[in-house]
Amino acid sequence: MQFELTKAFIEEVREHLDNGNKSAVAGLIADLHPADVAEIMQQFRDEHARDFFELLAQEKRADVFLELDEDWREAVLSSLSSEEIARQIIDEIDSDDAADLISELPEKQQQEVMSLLEDDEQADDIRQLMRYPEDSAGGIMAKELVMVREDWTIAQGIREMRKQAEEVNEVYTIYVVNEQEKLIGTLSLKQMVFNPSSVRATFKDVATKEAPIFIRAQESAEEAAKVMEKYDLVALPVVDEAGRLLGRITIDDVVDIMKEEAERDYQMASGLSDKVDVSDTVWEVTRARLPWLVIGLMGGLLVANVISVYEAEIAKITQLALFMPLIAAMGGNVGVQSSAIVVQGLANSSIDMQKLLPRLAKEFIVAMVSGLICASIVLGYNIVFEDSTLLGFTVGLALFSVIIFAALFGTFVPLMLNRFKIDPAVATGPFITTSNDIIGLAIYFMIARQFFNLG
Amino acid sequence: MQFELTKAFIEEVREHLDNGNKSAVAGLIADLHPADVAEIMQQFRDEHARDFFELLAQEKRADVFLELDEDWREAVLSSLSSEEIARQIIDEIDSDDAADLISELPEKQQQEVMSLLEDDEQADDIRQLMRYPEDSAGGIMAKELVMVREDWTIAQGIREMRKQAEEVNEVYTIYVVNEQEKLIGTLSLKQMVFNPSSVRATFKDVATKEAPIFIRAQESAEEAAKVMEKYDLVALPVVDEAGRLLGRITIDDVVDIMKEEAERDYQMASGLSDKVDVSDTVWEVTRARLPWLVIGLMGGLLVANVISVYEAEIAKITQLALFMPLIAAMGGNVGVQSSAIVVQGLANSSIDMQKLLPRLAKEFIVAMVSGLICASIVLGYNIVFEDSTLLGFTVGLALFSVIIFAALFGTFVPLMLNRFKIDPAVATGPFITTSNDIIGLAIYFMIARQFFNLG
Repeated sequence: MQFELTKAFIEEVREHLDNGNKSAVAGLIADLHPADVAEIMQQFRDEHARDFFELLAQEKRADVFLELDEDWREAVLSSLSSEEIARQIIDEIDSDDAADLISELPEKQQQEVMSLLEDDEQADDIRQLMRYPEDSAGGIMAKELVMVREDWTIAQGIREMRKQAEEVNEVYTIYVVNEQEKLIGTLSLKQMVFNPSSVRATFKDVATKEAPIFIRAQESAEEAAKVMEKYDLVALPVVDEAGRLLGRITIDDVVDIMKEEAERDYQMASGLSDKVDVSDTVWEVTRARLPWLVIGLMGGLLVANVISVYEAEIAKITQLALFMPLIAAMGGNVGVQSSAIVVQGLANSSIDMQKLLPRLAKEFIVAMVSGLICASIVLGYNIVFEDSTLLGFTVGLALFSVIIFAALFGTFVPLMLNRFKIDPAVATGPFITTSNDIIGLAIYFMIARQFFNLG
Repeated sequence: MQFELTKAFIEEVREHLDNGNKSAVAGLIADLHPADVAEIMQQFRDEHARDFFELLAQEKRADVFLELDEDWREAVLSSLSSEEIARQIIDEIDSDDAADLISELPEKQQQEVMSLLEDDEQADDIRQLMRYPEDSAGGIMAKELVMVREDWTIAQGIREMRKQAEEVNEVYTIYVVNEQEKLIGTLSLKQMVFNPSSVRATFKDVATKEAPIFIRAQESAEEAAKVMEKYDLVALPVVDEAGRLLGRITIDDVVDIMKEEAERDYQMASGLSDKVDVSDTVWEVTRARLPWLVIGLMGGLLVANVISVYEAEIAKITQLALFMPLIAAMGGNVGVQSSAIVVQGLANSSIDMQKLLPRLAKEFIVAMVSGLICASIVLGYNIVFEDSTLLGFTVGLALFSVIIFAALFGTFVPLMLNRFKIDPAVATGPFITTSNDIIGLAIYFMIARQFFNLG
């Protein structure tokens, strides 16, 4: 298909680099897409950042930079002077990427780079974008777009648009505004090319009649992603409180946000407190893993304390200990399932209109069915393979109770967190598992105490 | 912003529906976007499918249909005759959606609907698309695109393109092919509008000089998504073995695929064997949850069997039982973390170039650090709060060993599954947890046997 990164290719680049044969490396990567060049660079340690950057054609440097991952970007930036950053990168990229880049720089350097920008309008755009929170619609929009006034004629507009379009990489939609710069309609490029109207018509005549779909700058980036996905948009206009057009969000940014969100949810469900990449250092990986491990450990010690209350029971009937892991694990499994369904439902907003009680009622019925099936299996197993029917009934009843409790708990906790505006995804994984361990085993031993007339 | 679905609005629709006041409902939804109409419909039970469908303006029916979820689509389709399906839906939608829809129909009806299509070319397109596997690039492409021959002049091309563009909802790129229909270049609409060349130039003169990025029809849909994400494309051309242009994949399909994949991974990590929606029936939810629960249950019974070997140890030192849940839970937590890192690394292809051994070596070091920290905490706890230092050393050493084992096991299993082309995501969640329970507790009791001179 297109360029494919092979080990042989990487080896070739490595050899040239080791021999200081820079022009050979430059030749190998000259015709490649910036995304491919970035992929190649990332196969090397980032101390080569400056070497690679110098090998690239001037006009390609900014594009390659944008394709690099965070660690590499940092390495490139710290190898460049403020002037190089301003001229070779910022000047070449869209305002949204420029604002993100500058906010990542050390505070002192931010001022320096800003003052080195040649284009005042660009500097203003960047300053404006930096005022929005990173996770707001304003924080991910770009100022570059093609905009026409409703009272312009097509002929007038085309001249204006040509100038604007030079600054915009991809034009999907032309935005039509009124005198106050309020967004009043849109026009697709397709319409312009394939259904041209008289050059004397105004844009008001040719713009779509439906109200345009837009988002306000202060709404969340997540909301912007939802709107674009729902309405299948490749670009979404962003407006201020008064409805004035400020910028646009493009689909590639939204794809990145969606990916990050999915990864974060997955991480939280897996007990990782931070993004972990396979290329991270041992310490970075450990730091992301330790918090939940220590919380799990504390939970485990708490469990030990709770069970110690029942040490006498275990001493009398040691068989009770055999089924402790089963009870704990099943409580954990059911709890994680239930919370995952809620977390996904909340993420897809399909849970919005549903109330807490009906949700719990349904979960209760599902848990009853699952619990009955699982308890029957355990009872059957005990009757067939173990000699104690009483133990079978104890484990079976405890399992049934634990499944119901874990299902309700796993449903309730994320719904509550969500109500208090806490990300419900934190509730999945270790937290639910540990809580269910404690309560599940307590239920188990309470039932055992009754059945065996202990205590 | 745009339309927001409120409870009051839903109540109003419900009242009109209950009173049989159909025209009032039609009035309420007449001006809404198809995606909003679908959202409203889905608030009701799908026995209203036909009612709603009849309320919609003819030209809007197909668009609303495409926005509905699976259950609702089925309900609508089963309420329509084959002729209605052919004329009111298939005729109005893109070839990729049409092919998907037809393959969902019962086999008998498929033939019937196909024979009722008026446009032979459309029927051919659909038949061609239905031959590709659902999860291949060919299976998600649409035939609708705008294509010009390299030897045409711009003037000639514009006439041809106008005809083609009528069939295409969104035109992003114009594809330039040679005499054999081989894709040789692309041209953006932006170029056409804002940098027009002489109408006598040929498309060969104006097409981009770089080789176009494309994908072969037999490659996977997942691969197509990766290519589009990597190169930030909103449309990706699909070619056959000989490089002939067959169709294009658009970003909205890829966004759907990405979402489904992320959801599937999350589900598997949470022990759900099937997509579960909050609106699913009790039986559907139970069916998705039972498989892993039963597997977990079998694992739990196996654990009970394994521990029963150590019943004598537990009888002598009942305190050993107190820390069983801790050992089991920590093994599970570490294993899930390790497998999640591998699964995400594989999904992002950032693990590709890394070998198995270095990966395991690094995991080993991370586990050593985490294990030492956790073991020290447990030892400290036992020295301070419990009277038995021996127990503290037993639990600490066991925990250390279990963490290392679980980390290596959690890394190794998904990497192996991936090597044998099995989705590594199945390894996360209950499977890893249960395996680690068994082996972790076995390690615990073996260490205890040594320390306490038992057995």
